[in-house]
Amino acid sequence: MEGESTLRLRVFDLNCWAIRYLSKRRQERVRLIGDTLRRDSFDLVLLQEVWSEQDYSDLRVKLAGYYPFSHYFRSGVIGSGLCVFSRFPILDTLLYQYSLNGYPYMLQHGDWFCGKSVGLPGSRAGIGVGTTAPLLSLSLQLHAEYCREKDAYLPHRLVQAWELAQFIRHTSKAADVVLLGGDLNMHPEDVGIRLLRGWTGLRDAFAEATRFEGCKNGCTLVPNNCFTDSSELLPFPLGIRIDYILYKAVSSFIVKCEELKTTTGPAPGTDIPFSDHEAVMATLLIQRQGQAVGATLGTDEPALADVVTEARTEVSVGLRAAQRQRYSSGRMALLALLLLLLQAAAALGTLAGLGAEQPFPKLSFCLLAFLALGILVLSTGLHLFHTMEVKMLHGTEDQMSMALQALQKRP
Amino acid sequence: MEGESTLRLRVFDLNCWAIRYLSKRRQERVRLIGDTLRRDSFDLVLLQEVWSEQDYSDLRVKLAGYYPFSHYFRSGVIGSGLCVFSRFPILDTLLYQYSLNGYPYMLQHGDWFCGKSVGLPGSRAGIGVGTTAPLLSLSLQLHAEYCREKDAYLPHRLVQAWELAQFIRHTSKAADVVLLGGDLNMHPEDVGIRLLRGWTGLRDAFAEATRFEGCKNGCTLVPNNCFTDSSELLPFPLGIRIDYILYKAVSSFIVKCEELKTTTGPAPGTDIPFSDHEAVMATLLIQRQGQAVGATLGTDEPALADVVTEARTEVSVGLRAAQRQRYSSGRMALLALLLLLLQAAAALGTLAGLGAEQPFPKLSFCLLAFLALGILVLSTGLHLFHTMEVKMLHGTEDQMSMALQALQKRP
Repeated sequence: MEGESTLRLRVFDLNCWAIRYLSKRRQERVRLIGDTLRRDSFDLVLLQEVWSEQDYSDLRVKLAGYYPFSHYFRSGVIGSGLCVFSRFPILDTLLYQYSLNGYPYMLQHGDWFCGKSVGLPGSRAGIGVGTTAPLLSLSLQLHAEYCREKDAYLPHRLVQAWELAQFIRHTSKAADVVLLGGDLNMHPEDVGIRLLRGWTGLRDAFAEATRFEGCKNGCTLVPNNCFTDSSELLPFPLGIRIDYILYKAVSSFIVKCEELKTTTGPAPGTDIPFSDHEAVMATLLIQRQGQAVGATLGTDEPALADVVTEARTEVSVGLRAAQRQRYSSGRMALLALLLLLLQAAAALGTLAGLGAEQPFPKLSFCLLAFLALGILVLSTGLHLFHTMEVKMLHGTEDQMSMALQALQKRP
Repeated sequence: MEGESTLRLRVFDLNCWAIRYLSKRRQERVRLIGDTLRRDSFDLVLLQEVWSEQDYSDLRVKLAGYYPFSHYFRSGVIGSGLCVFSRFPILDTLLYQYSLNGYPYMLQHGDWFCGKSVGLPGSRAGIGVGTTAPLLSLSLQLHAEYCREKDAYLPHRLVQAWELAQFIRHTSKAADVVLLGGDLNMHPEDVGIRLLRGWTGLRDAFAEATRFEGCKNGCTLVPNNCFTDSSELLPFPLGIRIDYILYKAVSSFIVKCEELKTTTGPAPGTDIPFSDHEAVMATLLIQRQGQAVGATLGTDEPALADVVTEARTEVSVGLRAAQRQRYSSGRMALLALLLLLLQAAAALGTLAGLGAEQPFPKLSFCLLAFLALGILVLSTGLHLFHTMEVKMLHGTEDQMSMALQALQKRP
């Protein structure tokens, strides 16, 4: 099967959970990841949650001889956490920051501060003699799911999945092979995954693999990983699959997944796993074929229209919630402003000697004014934030409607 | 010259200056723009600064019979202000928000609130019998220049120009023709324009046009426009050219600019111009040719390397300024926190009866605490903002270095 014009591409994907001061045994694990990557030479390594640039630099120094090309994507307050190591030259990079990514005031969730994005390194991989294939790989992470029953971030995650799908459609047109690896924070049958796969034509390496080895059902968050919060996995005793390798061939190439593996808890020879997620490793066969194949959608069109409709409905629900929040924060700002104006009028009145005497003690008066000012500043900030949220959700809803129209018009 | 397989494409581009409550005679001008667009049927209309969705809706209703396809791009607090009207079906849209766009605290400049972006509608234009060409048009506006001598926003505008160029490189690969119209807020010889043209291969319709008619040197901000602030144009008595139509053919097509026009002050039959900017109108001839042409850079490579180096130097200057601001805002936050802690200790001391008596009057003590709290909140916010700014400037500097390496390695 493997001839002169075949490339066997080995891809490694891992959410490293390397948060400075917060992640357990971080430095030990980063060393372990580096050692493993150096030993099992892959062609392409896509890492997420490498939040510390120092960890990236250490990895780069360690891996320089094996993966001569690498890139770290910077964004947000803390960073994007994304980095890529490659055996092939990275010719170009592009970073796309999702327009919505949680709320700045949800400090305990922290997604907003991360500047979640998709990093796109473009490279060329040699296939056979004298042939190279433009290879577009993407490393990414979507907004986390903190509560499956009442998932307040679903509309944001859907906007991200949609923007990701649109980004892939627009940037992959001249690539031969598109490869995506990352922590999508979605179960395999969630609407966001179906939307992403359907709208881009990307195929799931787990579903397509000829051979599979690893955790049952390809799960990447498993109960027997000592870093996983087992209470989170109570409803899913086998674990869940939220890390994926997806791929497609765009032009005159075909891609097959020969083998997919996941790690299964502790790394060989140690007592700890790489991360709280399991790593996903795929071996892909890329072959040149005779004629070019046009871009295809991943799902047949009536089914895809259903998926887009479902996603649009969820986005509309999010839009209505954002509109309510925009309204109530605006009202709160207005009330605080009124209170401040009233106080100013009272103070001026006293100064001008109109009122007999100051009705409140000075300290309470002053405290009240500061409280009103604080509320005014905070609720104005919130109002601006939710206005942006409404705009982006509305824009995504529009784009989805346009996509549905286009789907319905096709013969 | 014009045969069966030639498309004559008429493009209209205008910064409409339609800010609710602020722009003079807005509704009258929007009506006038609509009337003109309905009369002089163009193929593609790219508008900027249409900040009110109501204005867009009014235009859409008025133009529905002439331009059946349109799109309004939503982003930021106020919006992106971008909209497109087209005679050709708009198949798909994508919005890319620049990662840097001024400072939220520069309220008087307001760029940050606009969510400046580039809107990309993808359409197919019929060329000859049975042939259609994927046409990628972009409507956009970059950060304004408020003071040419001491332009604090230059690094941000360069990051935007770079991101725009990268966005065009990555999204235009499968298009046949790329068309960009917008207010770039840069003079023709500014480094940002040279970078954009050089790195994408886009050609300037003004420089390429066979015929030109309009304001001298193609200026679009001219002193005899009654809405222009004439003091701004004192150093440039003829005006400046900051609105552009740029284009390129990507695959087996060639594009020529047959004619370029600008408006010259008052619209025909009225006493007012469309906007404080002049409109730019191009007639492009798009022809199919035999063989496909590969993607090309716009400038020869040593010259392009100089331009990228110049841009990178400016970005580095911006990076150092942002690092200084991050440092000083962080220090201010720390000082405010220290003051608050000291006050808390003093208050606790008094409560516990350790001190003989409260050394300050209660009111001043309270005022001081609120002041410290206010400074803490504001400077923490600023610190976070400048941290993001540093990350994005650093990321752009990295990408530019990578581009330079790639340019130097080419044979």
